[in-house]
Amino acid sequence: MHLYRTHKCAELSPFHVGETVRVSGWVHRKRDHGDLVFIDLRDHYGMVQIVTEVDGPVFQVIESLRAESVVTITGRVVARAPEAVNPNLATGAVEIRADDAVVLSAAQELPLPVAGEQDYPEDIRLRYRFLDLRRERLHANIVKRTKIISDMRRRMEGAGFTEYSTPILTASSPEGARDFLVPSRIHAGKFYALPQAPQQYKQLLMVAGFDRYFQIAPCFRDEDPRADRLPGEFYQLDLEMSFVTQEDVWDTMEPVIAQVFEEFADGKPVTPAGRFPRIPHAEAMLKYGSDKPDLRNPILITDVTEHFVGSGFGIFASLVESGAVIRAIPAPGAGAGSRKFFDDMNNWARSEGYSGLGYINIKDGVPGGPIAKNHGEEATAKLVAALGLGPNDGVFFAAGKEAQAAKLAGLARIRVGEQLDLIDKDRFELCWIIDFPFYEYDEDAKKIDFAHNPFSMPQGGMDALNGSDPLSINAFQYDMVCNGYEIASGSIRNQSPELMVKAFELVGLSQQDVEDRFGGLYRAFQYGAPPHGGMAAGVDRIVMLLCGAQNLREVTLFPMNQRAEDLLMGAPSVPELKQLRELNIRVVEQTKS
Amino acid sequence: MHLYRTHKCAELSPFHVGETVRVSGWVHRKRDHGDLVFIDLRDHYGMVQIVTEVDGPVFQVIESLRAESVVTITGRVVARAPEAVNPNLATGAVEIRADDAVVLSAAQELPLPVAGEQDYPEDIRLRYRFLDLRRERLHANIVKRTKIISDMRRRMEGAGFTEYSTPILTASSPEGARDFLVPSRIHAGKFYALPQAPQQYKQLLMVAGFDRYFQIAPCFRDEDPRADRLPGEFYQLDLEMSFVTQEDVWDTMEPVIAQVFEEFADGKPVTPAGRFPRIPHAEAMLKYGSDKPDLRNPILITDVTEHFVGSGFGIFASLVESGAVIRAIPAPGAGAGSRKFFDDMNNWARSEGYSGLGYINIKDGVPGGPIAKNHGEEATAKLVAALGLGPNDGVFFAAGKEAQAAKLAGLARIRVGEQLDLIDKDRFELCWIIDFPFYEYDEDAKKIDFAHNPFSMPQGGMDALNGSDPLSINAFQYDMVCNGYEIASGSIRNQSPELMVKAFELVGLSQQDVEDRFGGLYRAFQYGAPPHGGMAAGVDRIVMLLCGAQNLREVTLFPMNQRAEDLLMGAPSVPELKQLRELNIRVVEQTKS
Repeated sequence: MHLYRTHKCAELSPFHVGETVRVSGWVHRKRDHGDLVFIDLRDHYGMVQIVTEVDGPVFQVIESLRAESVVTITGRVVARAPEAVNPNLATGAVEIRADDAVVLSAAQELPLPVAGEQDYPEDIRLRYRFLDLRRERLHANIVKRTKIISDMRRRMEGAGFTEYSTPILTASSPEGARDFLVPSRIHAGKFYALPQAPQQYKQLLMVAGFDRYFQIAPCFRDEDPRADRLPGEFYQLDLEMSFVTQEDVWDTMEPVIAQVFEEFADGKPVTPAGRFPRIPHAEAMLKYGSDKPDLRNPILITDVTEHFVGSGFGIFASLVESGAVIRAIPAPGAGAGSRKFFDDMNNWARSEGYSGLGYINIKDGVPGGPIAKNHGEEATAKLVAALGLGPNDGVFFAAGKEAQAAKLAGLARIRVGEQLDLIDKDRFELCWIIDFPFYEYDEDAKKIDFAHNPFSMPQGGMDALNGSDPLSINAFQYDMVCNGYEIASGSIRNQSPELMVKAFELVGLSQQDVEDRFGGLYRAFQYGAPPHGGMAAGVDRIVMLLCGAQNLREVTLFPMNQRAEDLLMGAPSVPELKQLRELNIRVVEQTKS
Repeated sequence: MHLYRTHKCAELSPFHVGETVRVSGWVHRKRDHGDLVFIDLRDHYGMVQIVTEVDGPVFQVIESLRAESVVTITGRVVARAPEAVNPNLATGAVEIRADDAVVLSAAQELPLPVAGEQDYPEDIRLRYRFLDLRRERLHANIVKRTKIISDMRRRMEGAGFTEYSTPILTASSPEGARDFLVPSRIHAGKFYALPQAPQQYKQLLMVAGFDRYFQIAPCFRDEDPRADRLPGEFYQLDLEMSFVTQEDVWDTMEPVIAQVFEEFADGKPVTPAGRFPRIPHAEAMLKYGSDKPDLRNPILITDVTEHFVGSGFGIFASLVESGAVIRAIPAPGAGAGSRKFFDDMNNWARSEGYSGLGYINIKDGVPGGPIAKNHGEEATAKLVAALGLGPNDGVFFAAGKEAQAAKLAGLARIRVGEQLDLIDKDRFELCWIIDFPFYEYDEDAKKIDFAHNPFSMPQGGMDALNGSDPLSINAFQYDMVCNGYEIASGSIRNQSPELMVKAFELVGLSQQDVEDRFGGLYRAFQYGAPPHGGMAAGVDRIVMLLCGAQNLREVTLFPMNQRAEDLLMGAPSVPELKQLRELNIRVVEQTKS
């Protein structure tokens, strides 16, 4: 008989009744029924009930066990009495009568309970992560995470991609965020950087003639803690393809992502592959007030600026005159409710720093509120008809400069959807946002800058770059969005050295700047670079969505806390002076400021 | 028709004759036959021949192309004339008559040729790695590498393992090598470390209740450059299992490794799973003079100390009297050859710093040389018979303190095997070396220290640790060896806090030291730790063996050079002062010493 187990805990069933078996695991719960003591014994795979009588051979050992001790039990599988069968447990029809018990590791008093799912302070959970990870929900999340990643790999290989690992000790990359630096011992004063993303390497792979690359890639950004981002490292499903248009990338990746979602959505509906809406960025900003719209929310925003030209509602009329836009956000059925809902929305908009949200509330077909009153009966009726509003609907208005009005309208759309409970939480709505603007006007620096990714190919190529208005140029750049989260981002790359120089020239950077910042890539493009493009999907975010978790730390094995500390291993820590000396660096006392 | 290609270059066959197709790729070679110009067009998948006539529509474009330019060709597939068929090329029965050619990326004069496999200085190859990677052998090695890793993953999952990613920004680990440090911006004066291996995390995973972990794990060691090691980062197939004995680890991993080898050995014989010899460390040191024996070498070393007690060959007799051992290394058939072979071996041993290699050369059944002469005819005949030597064999003798004699014998065994061409290079001989000593005597520090891994479980447990001679204790520790290379190393871990403290006590470290060095793990062992063990296999090394490469850089995508520099991306580099200021560190001028 094996030293530790003949079966995993979850394997035992009525099929094994009468057999003598051996199982090992953790004491999940112990219940003392006077003459009988029961243990729920837990391993990675599941749970089985152990029972011993007060005069049984191992009562003493079992009686003394603290929860979470590790024990090997040898005994006979018996069927439970019909009334004792536990239908919620895979092994619930049987139990093991213990003949022998060996304590492999006695647990001390626990700082954190494992059985049960009560909330516990996060610092304790992270410090004792090895206990926290034994808890049912986190254990299940982590197992699901590993399965999702394995499934992604399988599907990417199935789609003709090959996984290549790119270097982790590399050069500072121009992704825009802050690099983690690694001092070189051999080259005093020089530093490696951890990659913010394998962007340059994957493009170099295409230039090197490899056709379809992917990688479950660790990425590193030294950013200030944010609730929706893990400090330090995170994972991307990173990919790149040669000789492709953006449509090829979409057609290739839609099935992969849709199928991963379907596989792990626990039966919730998922937008099917081939049916992801492809929404131009400008349209998304208009209809959803966001470049990451939650399509589960049925509300669509409409531009109603024209309706307020010369309106009796003077505020809007004069705003429109000065170039502002007015966006309408319908609130289906809200007119039937109280005015308080409308006033609360208005107050919320003010608390967010906007000047407010105008509204019309229609009750039994009669539009109410100050806008309706001042706009005039006929004009209001026309507006209501144009918006297709019903006899008890409401509508909000966001007014202001286009970008600001769009943003407020987008936030109002989300809030109205939530407050009116219009969002079907139990589905995954996926779409592409495409045709992102290549440049944007930087109000602070009073100059044109790249809107997103300077590596992207501008639509229209050199002709567009030589045209009159850079701000009118779109890039072959796209995001994939799910339920209001950006889950992937990509582009067709600019692989032409001439186009690259020209594109940077427009934001005020010289050829020398290009060479300094993207030396490896710029050099490579001189020696035969195929057209290529790809994307990177946020693995942690996708796992979070599929686990229904609210926090990235709930789907991560050993996360750092929000202060970027690993409380379990004690990182970061003060190194020995000798180590710093070898690295030719010294810590500088922080000057108070 | 797709903008870039309807087919991959390698896909075209007589089946496509008559079709108009589009292909894209790199101009591998161009041959000008006066009235015809031929191009070998290459993509990731293979090659196809393009042809155009001097008065054809695209002659000008094709004529002007430099090698490695990227071009899209549209044209008609035609069958080659029988005498023009190239049987060495998958597409060799057809060619494409070009109707249209679009240059996607014109190549400049190349710093490094792609066609052909001539040697080139490594610095150029690394600086232009994107060109080097287009070359046939390196391209094939990298593709094979990715396939091997993918196959490892598949087999590990098939064996019930789950891949978990462990943190890369973590705490300094006690693996013995030097850590790469990463300064923390948020915590002034503190540093993260990159993991030398995920050792502690994988053990924590077992304590956390996950049963079978594996990971293709990036590992980082800041060591001085060595020919057989990549500077910076390398990859391990890392794994750990709970509730197992060492036999379970061997039985589980033998099939995985054997099958990976079989899959990629190009038909060369591989030791089958279940048949890996399990050689105790002491036996390996005796029979092979090494803990990583090349079993393709048929020579076995024998201890012949007893034969020289009171021998007429005074040097050996007195050595033996003073406690030395004598090891015999047979040299089959060497007696028939010249004496020079024996003298050369002796000189080689001296040049390696040993006092020399004695020998007996048997010619037509007559033992010759000074040892035979002085040892005496009868005693020599007895020795020859005991060693089973034939009438024209030779034998060398390594004498000295046990460890030194074993080492010299091992080196001599390798050299004799090579010189006499006894090694069948075209096979993979795999074995386990087991029962490594737990402690060793550190001659410099004049104290007992851990021989290998302090995390290992000592055989015999607490009783052994409390026994009289720590140097007699073996650990549950093992290596996997292939063709003379250590390709994996592992152990059953010491998961008992009491045993851990006792084991460290014997090398002079206190409980406090244990807590300081292995805090996370030591703490975890207090709360229910299962017995567990595992191993880590060197991915780069295995790939190198299977590719028949001589150098790890030949199987690595973007390796650093031997000075730990990435010549392509320019790492390490001097950061901006602002970056260092944010990290609260300053570079210290190196003092000349």
